[in-house]
Amino acid sequence: MHKKLLIPGPTEVSQEILHEQTHPLIGHRSKEFSQLYAGIIKKLTRFFELPANCKPTVTTASGALWFDIVGRSIVQNKALVCINGAFSERFGNAIKACGKNANFLEFAWGEAVKPDAIAEELETGEYDTVTICHNESSTGTRSPIHEIGKIIRKDYPEVMLAIDSVSSMAGDKILPAEIGCDVIFASTQKCFALPPGLAISLVSDRALERAKQVPNRGAYTDLVDIFKFEKKHQTQSTPNIPLFYALDKRMDLLLEETYNKVYHRHKDMAEYTQQWAKKHFEMFPEQGYESITVSCIKNTLGKKVKRLNEKLEEQGFTIGNGYGKLKEKTFRIGHMGEWNTAAIKQVLAIIDEIWRLET
Amino acid sequence: MHKKLLIPGPTEVSQEILHEQTHPLIGHRSKEFSQLYAGIIKKLTRFFELPANCKPTVTTASGALWFDIVGRSIVQNKALVCINGAFSERFGNAIKACGKNANFLEFAWGEAVKPDAIAEELETGEYDTVTICHNESSTGTRSPIHEIGKIIRKDYPEVMLAIDSVSSMAGDKILPAEIGCDVIFASTQKCFALPPGLAISLVSDRALERAKQVPNRGAYTDLVDIFKFEKKHQTQSTPNIPLFYALDKRMDLLLEETYNKVYHRHKDMAEYTQQWAKKHFEMFPEQGYESITVSCIKNTLGKKVKRLNEKLEEQGFTIGNGYGKLKEKTFRIGHMGEWNTAAIKQVLAIIDEIWRLET
Repeated sequence: MHKKLLIPGPTEVSQEILHEQTHPLIGHRSKEFSQLYAGIIKKLTRFFELPANCKPTVTTASGALWFDIVGRSIVQNKALVCINGAFSERFGNAIKACGKNANFLEFAWGEAVKPDAIAEELETGEYDTVTICHNESSTGTRSPIHEIGKIIRKDYPEVMLAIDSVSSMAGDKILPAEIGCDVIFASTQKCFALPPGLAISLVSDRALERAKQVPNRGAYTDLVDIFKFEKKHQTQSTPNIPLFYALDKRMDLLLEETYNKVYHRHKDMAEYTQQWAKKHFEMFPEQGYESITVSCIKNTLGKKVKRLNEKLEEQGFTIGNGYGKLKEKTFRIGHMGEWNTAAIKQVLAIIDEIWRLET
Repeated sequence: MHKKLLIPGPTEVSQEILHEQTHPLIGHRSKEFSQLYAGIIKKLTRFFELPANCKPTVTTASGALWFDIVGRSIVQNKALVCINGAFSERFGNAIKACGKNANFLEFAWGEAVKPDAIAEELETGEYDTVTICHNESSTGTRSPIHEIGKIIRKDYPEVMLAIDSVSSMAGDKILPAEIGCDVIFASTQKCFALPPGLAISLVSDRALERAKQVPNRGAYTDLVDIFKFEKKHQTQSTPNIPLFYALDKRMDLLLEETYNKVYHRHKDMAEYTQQWAKKHFEMFPEQGYESITVSCIKNTLGKKVKRLNEKLEEQGFTIGNGYGKLKEKTFRIGHMGEWNTAAIKQVLAIIDEIWRLET
C-alpha cells in the first residue's frame, strides 16, 4: 500500500506530474529542448516576479549542490553562517569544506535567526557573504529573511546574501525583489511537489559579478559557466529532461493558482496544524517563527511517534519523526506542495483517533 | 512525431523504462529506499564483476559532476590529463578549475591516447593522478584503457587512474578489475538507456583512502562523505528516486542479457556501421580505435548532414552531426543502450535512400 507523504520532503507527487516524466527523450542540444527550457525560465520569472537583474537557473542535482556552488562561486574570503538547525549547519560545513573561512553565528534549535545579531557581526567588516536557511526543516523554524535582507542591502551593498529556501520556495514568501537576496535556491521535491533531482535557483546579477572574481570555482559548481549556457537556454551538462517536463507542467499549475493563493494555502495548512498541536502539545519553534510548510511539534505527552507512524501507514499516510537528536521528542508534519487543509484535517483526525486525543 | 535518438546521448529510452519513473514517491531515509538502493548496488556489483575493494555509488547529477569529484577528492597535487577530444579536454579544464595542477598530454582529435606516452610522462614522478576519457564521443574514439591501467598498476601503485566512461559503461568492456582503475564513471543517458539525471561510478578503496588525504573536498563533491552514506544504503542528499526505480529495472534487464552479450551486441552494431561507413565514406578515428557505441564518420562526400537529419526526422529518427569544429565534416551515429543491429540496418538503409548511396 502506498503511504502518502507528509514528511518534510520528498512530498507527495500526483500521478499526473509523475507521468510527465514519460515523454520520449529529446536531445539536450536540440531546439526542442531549448524551447522547453526557455518556457520554464519564463514561467519561473513570472511566478517569482523576478526583476531584470535576477535570473533563474535549473540544475540537475539535489538542492544541496547549491551549498557547494555558494562555497565555490560566491564566498570570496569569509562567510557569516547563520545556524539554527541541521540544514543551516550543513550549509556552513559545506562552505568550510570548500576551503573558505566561515564564522558560525549560532542560535538554539527552534530559535529563529535574529537580524540584530547579523547586523552586529557585519559591523566587523570581515564578511563578504551571509548564508541562512529560510525554513529549517529540522526544527520547523522560519527565519525573517526579509528583515535580514533589508539590513544587508541598506548597509552592506557588497555583501552577498545566499538563502537556502529548499523547503519554502513555491510555498512561503520568497520573492528575491522583496528580500534583496543574491542567491536563493530550492529542491524540486518540496513545495514544487515534483520528484527530487533538480535544484531551482534565483540568482542576482550581483552574484554573477562576484562569481567572476572568485578563483577555483570548479566546473559543475561554477556559477559563471552555468549562466553561460543560460543564454542559449541550455544547461552546462545533460539535464534531467523528464523532470524538466514535470517542472514545466508544475509551473503551469502554480501560475494558474497564483503566487498569493499558493502562499495562503500553505499558511492555512500551517495554522490549522498549529491550532491542533497547541490543543494537545506545544509547537517546537520559537513563537511567531513557525514554518508554514513543516510543522514541528513538541511531543509533550511523550507519545510513541514511531508507533504512530506504523499505524498511520496502515491507513495510507506517513509523517516525519523528529530530526536527529529531536527524534521522538518532536514530530513533524510536512504540509506542502499538493496538500490542502481538508486533507490535513483528515490526517490529524486519524492521529486523534490513534493517540486517543480529546477532540 | 517522436524522433528516435541515434545521437551520442541521450539515447532512446523505452516506454517500459520511462514508466518506472511513475512509482509513487517514498522517503529517501526510509527502509524501503535503502532496500531499493541496496538492490541496485548488488546488481551493479554483479554486472561489473566488482572485487571486494571496488564499490559502486549512484549520484544525482550528470556524469560531469565526476570531473569535479575527481578534481576535488582525488587529485592531490598534479594530474596527467590525456586529451584527444572535447570531453577529455573538459575533464582537464574541470581539474584545473578546481585549483589543481594539470599537464595536458594532447593527441589529435580522432587519435587514441597512447600508453607509451603516458608511461614516459609518469617517469617524471610528478603526477598523483591520470585522467582519461575511454570513449571520446566527440570523435568516436576509444582509448586502450586496459593497457594504460596495466602500466600504472605495475609501476605506479600510488597513482590514481580516473576514467570517464560516460558513453561506454554498460556497452563496452570496462571491468575495473581488468583495468585496474580507481574511479570510473558514467551517465545514465548513454549505454544504460535511461533518462539523464544520475551518474554511476565504480570506486576503488585506494581512491577512497586517497580522498581522505585531500583537503577542501567540498560537500557534494566529497568522495569520503558520499561513501559514508553508502554504508547505510543511503545517499548524501535526496536522490532522484524515480530514476533509481528505472535503474533498478535496467540492471535486471542487463543482468538477464549478460555482460558479454551486451558487449557483443554493441560490437556488432559498431562493425555493421563501420562496414557501411567504409563503403561510402571513411571512419574518422584512427584505425583500430573505433568506438563501439558511437561511430564518427568522415563526411568525405561532402554531404549535407543537417539536411539529412531533417529528412531522417520525417521518418522518425535523428542522428548526430559532428561535434563542434567537426560539424558537417563528420557525422555520428550513436548505437548504444536499447539499439540492435537490425534497427541500425534499417536506419542506415534510410540514409542510403536519402543520400542516394549505392548499395
